[in-house]
Amino acid sequence: MNEPLTLSVADEELALLTDLYQLTMIQAYWKEGIHDTPATFSLFFRQLPPSRRFILACGQQHAAAKLSQLHFNDAAIEKLASTGRFDDDFLNWLANWRFSGDIWTVPEGTPLFPHQPLLEVDAPIAEAQLLESLIMNLVQLETVLATKAARIVWAAGNRPVVDFGMRRVHGIDAAVRGVRAYKTAGLNGTSNVLGGLRHDLPLSGTMAHSYVLAHDDEPSAFRAFARHYPNTTLLVDTYDTLEGVRHVIDMLRDLPDLSVGAVRLDSGDLGQLAGKARALLDDAGFTDIKIIASSGLDEHGIAELVAQEAPIDAFGVGTQMGVSADAPVIDLSYKLVEYAGQPRAKHAPGKISLPTRKQIYRRQDAAGRYIGDTIAQRDDTHIPGEALLSPVVQNGVIIPDTMAQAHQARARVADALPRFPASVTALEQGESDYPVELSDTLKHLSSTV
Amino acid sequence: MNEPLTLSVADEELALLTDLYQLTMIQAYWKEGIHDTPATFSLFFRQLPPSRRFILACGQQHAAAKLSQLHFNDAAIEKLASTGRFDDDFLNWLANWRFSGDIWTVPEGTPLFPHQPLLEVDAPIAEAQLLESLIMNLVQLETVLATKAARIVWAAGNRPVVDFGMRRVHGIDAAVRGVRAYKTAGLNGTSNVLGGLRHDLPLSGTMAHSYVLAHDDEPSAFRAFARHYPNTTLLVDTYDTLEGVRHVIDMLRDLPDLSVGAVRLDSGDLGQLAGKARALLDDAGFTDIKIIASSGLDEHGIAELVAQEAPIDAFGVGTQMGVSADAPVIDLSYKLVEYAGQPRAKHAPGKISLPTRKQIYRRQDAAGRYIGDTIAQRDDTHIPGEALLSPVVQNGVIIPDTMAQAHQARARVADALPRFPASVTALEQGESDYPVELSDTLKHLSSTV
Repeated sequence: MNEPLTLSVADEELALLTDLYQLTMIQAYWKEGIHDTPATFSLFFRQLPPSRRFILACGQQHAAAKLSQLHFNDAAIEKLASTGRFDDDFLNWLANWRFSGDIWTVPEGTPLFPHQPLLEVDAPIAEAQLLESLIMNLVQLETVLATKAARIVWAAGNRPVVDFGMRRVHGIDAAVRGVRAYKTAGLNGTSNVLGGLRHDLPLSGTMAHSYVLAHDDEPSAFRAFARHYPNTTLLVDTYDTLEGVRHVIDMLRDLPDLSVGAVRLDSGDLGQLAGKARALLDDAGFTDIKIIASSGLDEHGIAELVAQEAPIDAFGVGTQMGVSADAPVIDLSYKLVEYAGQPRAKHAPGKISLPTRKQIYRRQDAAGRYIGDTIAQRDDTHIPGEALLSPVVQNGVIIPDTMAQAHQARARVADALPRFPASVTALEQGESDYPVELSDTLKHLSSTV
Repeated sequence: MNEPLTLSVADEELALLTDLYQLTMIQAYWKEGIHDTPATFSLFFRQLPPSRRFILACGQQHAAAKLSQLHFNDAAIEKLASTGRFDDDFLNWLANWRFSGDIWTVPEGTPLFPHQPLLEVDAPIAEAQLLESLIMNLVQLETVLATKAARIVWAAGNRPVVDFGMRRVHGIDAAVRGVRAYKTAGLNGTSNVLGGLRHDLPLSGTMAHSYVLAHDDEPSAFRAFARHYPNTTLLVDTYDTLEGVRHVIDMLRDLPDLSVGAVRLDSGDLGQLAGKARALLDDAGFTDIKIIASSGLDEHGIAELVAQEAPIDAFGVGTQMGVSADAPVIDLSYKLVEYAGQPRAKHAPGKISLPTRKQIYRRQDAAGRYIGDTIAQRDDTHIPGEALLSPVVQNGVIIPDTMAQAHQARARVADALPRFPASVTALEQGESDYPVELSDTLKHLSSTV
């Protein structure tokens, strides 16, 4: 096999993870001598997916920090030279390039609505353009997954949710960085060893059907596993869920030195089975054995089980969360909104963007409830509310202590979501009545640019 | 910011990209002394997504080759030790572990149907289990993307299709390995520099709206870009598509030393605009300038434009292909089907799996048309048709010349798809009438295990 077997993409290779046109446009700017013209690009989305009422911005500070350090190493320059599309002089400039601009972001874990920037880059146009494709790729992944996961955590209320989805997500990076998004959204654990270790989310795991099938019968499998792992979770549905629960009970009666922390239900009518399993366990005196449910769960399935008051103590979620199956894409745009000090806007049908550098103000009432946002020009003054965008990179350098770590972002999400009206956090398809307005000056500017 | 800024996952870290329960189960097998029991795991899917009529197996040989070399390095062992879940003796065993089993796969680029294995692992149970989570993650990504891309290429007929989706896919790995899947499926180019260079798919790029907005007006932008890049593609819809086309025509009349290869339409009614743009270009004598269309296209949008005979010469596709939006997941299963020489099967409701090691036979008629498949036991003999599964790793070692490179897989796809009945390649939702049967012996075994 002559194909390279390498799967990894080293951080030093990331400068080449871009769309070709970024580099050809930049070469054109450079030849025209306008590559240093100051510009602002804004990262936002024009509309929500039908199945979303807010987007949880995630990854934008992480991406900003990373991208402020982007550069083209010798190997990258050589590869670009090999395409025959770039002049040596330009490649020399590119080899010496370091990001010199500013990046503003909302904090990680901020719920946002259409046309609100997640991030703005103020930089010479060539530099802002160099970041575009990678910034979009990086931010979209974490934002899509965190948004989905936040809905799932919301649906589960105070019951823990654990990520079991590593095998279903789209590749290695999604598996690992996904855990960061899940942590931000409020998940309580992950089965993903590398992701959990890297992003400091507790590891969690039970057993697979194959373990049961590898033993002569279910009771033998349960006994063996429980001997190795006191207080473990046993998967009870390989043959028949309630029969499996009975096997657990029989084992604990026969072998009182063994202990079981939980049983996991992974198929069938989870609500009904949980009720029956709970009754079996309680009747046998095992009131402290918890019930964990998994199997194709998403926020709707979880909300239904919670509404039924199914006696489920924790949820395991995989596929639906791992690819955000009902909204795998947020249609992020990274648009030129200011150039050479002048506001710019694109007018193509259905693809309107708001001109100029922006700020978002979020207002609270006396009880701390969010009552509305104003999207304003960055230098609009006297607008009430908390300003959400702030600089995290200045003159190409990360500003110390401006970026939230994932555990801080997580606290922010937990604090913010309950402050919104129920129409924002509702899970069913529909639109919220949360008011998001343009400031008068931005409204005026939008109609004239 | 104390969080690590590293985004990359090195190949040496991949052994930890697994679900915790794999490692706890393996430790249990090891303690029970049954970790060496021979087992076979089969990677298959139980049902097609509603919007798919076949799955294009992709990445399974690449994954098999990679996973045959998996091992836990010192750093990985230390990290596992830090979790406090593993005994030193077991970690010693794990540190010395190398894969010793066999892996069978269908060739990359093979269209498959439910219950047909993409891959089977014959190995001591602990080893087969060690590969599970990563094999599923790796194979699912390329298979999901290749399946979607194959539908798009099929819809486009003989018109080239180019990948513009790097910014929308789920992270870095999906962006880079996605290009391998697109190449297999038959795409003609990609805008993704790193992905295209690594997987040898031609780079392609046009220009962005921001380039137009960074100039005083559209004609200035067109002139500047065309001067830098003879025969380039100009994006004509920043303000008004047909006005943009007129600006191209005017420029070429005024400055006959400039040349333009194509115009790109990126918004509005693409079919109608393509017709009008074609007429404007032809009337002006520029019959050789091609028209490229993009903007939210998927196989259905492309099929409609092709059916309308819209004068579009090539399609650019991004978001819909990049996340396989209408089917972001294939519900792959990796199940124990044989253990200690005995067939095994899971019987949980709705999650039936077929026991034992398998082979797939695909039959052709005299004209080379595929007429039906038989799923058989691996040692079933005298079953007509081409056997699709063959070994690519034996005793832990890659068998030379057994694995298709992406360009060979691509040729295989192009050859195979037209041989299927139209009900398999049809794009609309529905089921094909392609017959897939079980061999008599497998049928008998399935009803008795």
